[in-house]
Amino acid sequence: MDIKKVTVAGGGVLGSQIAFQSAYSGYDVTIWLRTEASIGRCQPKLDYLHATYLKTLDAMKQNPAAYAYGLMPREDVTPQSCEDAKAKVEAAYKGIRLTTDWDEAFGDADLVIEAVAESVQQKIDFYTELAKHLPERTIIDTNSSTLLPSQFAEATGRPEKFLALHFANEIWSHPTAEVMRHAGTGDEAFEATIAFAASIRMIPLRVNKEQPGYLLNSMLVPFLNSAEALWANEVATPEDIDRAWTLGTGAPAGPFRILDIVGLTTAYNIGIMDPRSKDPNTVQGKITAKLKEKIDRGELGLNAGKGFYEYPKQ
Amino acid sequence: MDIKKVTVAGGGVLGSQIAFQSAYSGYDVTIWLRTEASIGRCQPKLDYLHATYLKTLDAMKQNPAAYAYGLMPREDVTPQSCEDAKAKVEAAYKGIRLTTDWDEAFGDADLVIEAVAESVQQKIDFYTELAKHLPERTIIDTNSSTLLPSQFAEATGRPEKFLALHFANEIWSHPTAEVMRHAGTGDEAFEATIAFAASIRMIPLRVNKEQPGYLLNSMLVPFLNSAEALWANEVATPEDIDRAWTLGTGAPAGPFRILDIVGLTTAYNIGIMDPRSKDPNTVQGKITAKLKEKIDRGELGLNAGKGFYEYPKQ
Repeated sequence: MDIKKVTVAGGGVLGSQIAFQSAYSGYDVTIWLRTEASIGRCQPKLDYLHATYLKTLDAMKQNPAAYAYGLMPREDVTPQSCEDAKAKVEAAYKGIRLTTDWDEAFGDADLVIEAVAESVQQKIDFYTELAKHLPERTIIDTNSSTLLPSQFAEATGRPEKFLALHFANEIWSHPTAEVMRHAGTGDEAFEATIAFAASIRMIPLRVNKEQPGYLLNSMLVPFLNSAEALWANEVATPEDIDRAWTLGTGAPAGPFRILDIVGLTTAYNIGIMDPRSKDPNTVQGKITAKLKEKIDRGELGLNAGKGFYEYPKQ
Repeated sequence: MDIKKVTVAGGGVLGSQIAFQSAYSGYDVTIWLRTEASIGRCQPKLDYLHATYLKTLDAMKQNPAAYAYGLMPREDVTPQSCEDAKAKVEAAYKGIRLTTDWDEAFGDADLVIEAVAESVQQKIDFYTELAKHLPERTIIDTNSSTLLPSQFAEATGRPEKFLALHFANEIWSHPTAEVMRHAGTGDEAFEATIAFAASIRMIPLRVNKEQPGYLLNSMLVPFLNSAEALWANEVATPEDIDRAWTLGTGAPAGPFRILDIVGLTTAYNIGIMDPRSKDPNTVQGKITAKLKEKIDRGELGLNAGKGFYEYPKQ
């Protein structure tokens, strides 16, 4: 499976990053957007990534802590190689095409990465239309965080060439690529996606069965929940719970630092999916009630300047 | 509450460390042992700690990575201060008294730290006899990892002066001290134990309610279980699950590295406490079956040279 032309469907935060990193890695990249207005919202994201990649390469010349895995192997970093890599950034920035035209976007794509809104119906509508424009050879990867590929396999019309490729935010420095097959995914598409992820300097992780939350969130959610339970039951303060974790495991951040990064609204939204959260006498009910109190006070986490901790204004 | 005389009951791995660290910090320390044979088993542990503290102080003179929190504040470390601290190691080593005599051990103790075997009956027998020899003022802390202080509060005869003080292994470099009260613990004993823990250079964490597993294990057990579930369900390999965690959270070790350190037998013993582990069709049943396979092959973890990973022979 020789992948050259990559089309990313959707130009949001992740879609634009996936497109930029793929173009930086030498792929011929198109971003498909639903409307002209979406093109208007996507272009500033590409401008930002262009500036960020250039700035990161400059910082990497002198500061080892600025190293971003996605930009080059660590052993290749020299002031000259960072300078040279700027040409790849410029080529990526100039080379990415934005279009609302289905045939232009998908008519000759080798790989489609779907990063449209997290709505079952919107995705089904997208895949149903996509099937009319896509060559038979094309592999489709969904970047969905919360929905499962099996929900859309039929709509794609090519379940054996359909799977999930899930990125973390700021992919140039957080290079996790969880590659997840559903029961009908063929080996060829699975291996081709793993190879593609590695070729854009991601670290591919093989998720051999459908798993809600992939690998990271399958561990993060119960871990954070256990910490929230200690807090909601008034066993200890967030600070002491974090200290128990960082002292005990050597991790750089405890669960409440992580919750501040994730955002309390996201934690709350995950919490209320559990039916027990409706009963105030259960631990889940206590957790969601206490999270809601903080959210109502505007203590939403790192981005708000305050969550479980306070953060200096940027 | 003025604590000067500390008696540690039990001279096992943790008991000897607690005694040595307390003596190093200037306390008048006695170790009570049940039999003369126990004294014979405890002495080599103190010899080892004596050598380890001296060796660590020597290493700290030159190597910042050798720093052990329990030995002195980081900002105080100089070649001279490390040399000077050896006198405290020698004084601790010479000063610790070992005895099987109840009155000698407990008759004038300000604080008793119980570190006898993890057996409900043995602890009840110990506390019942202890009550006959202990001054009224004395606080009793249990270092039990798996039993709850409320199980023994009545046997001590002084529930308001009884609570838990839980240490990690190698306390001179892993200075977590989880201080846990039961419902009947008084504020004075709770605060005095926190102050004592800080005075022997531990970092006290306030556990304000009884919580099986204290803080760290209350998070570690569900976290490790979620990772074991991914492995037992054949979603991904231990290596990829660990990578998802370390890449996603910046932690130095993923769950299977931690399981190798904890030991697979311990993980198995925790697992079989869940009644679902008896049903091979449940996730818990699959986890315990797969752990047992590895244990039967001698893949017990770090100490065995092989667990989920292989380790070079020491």
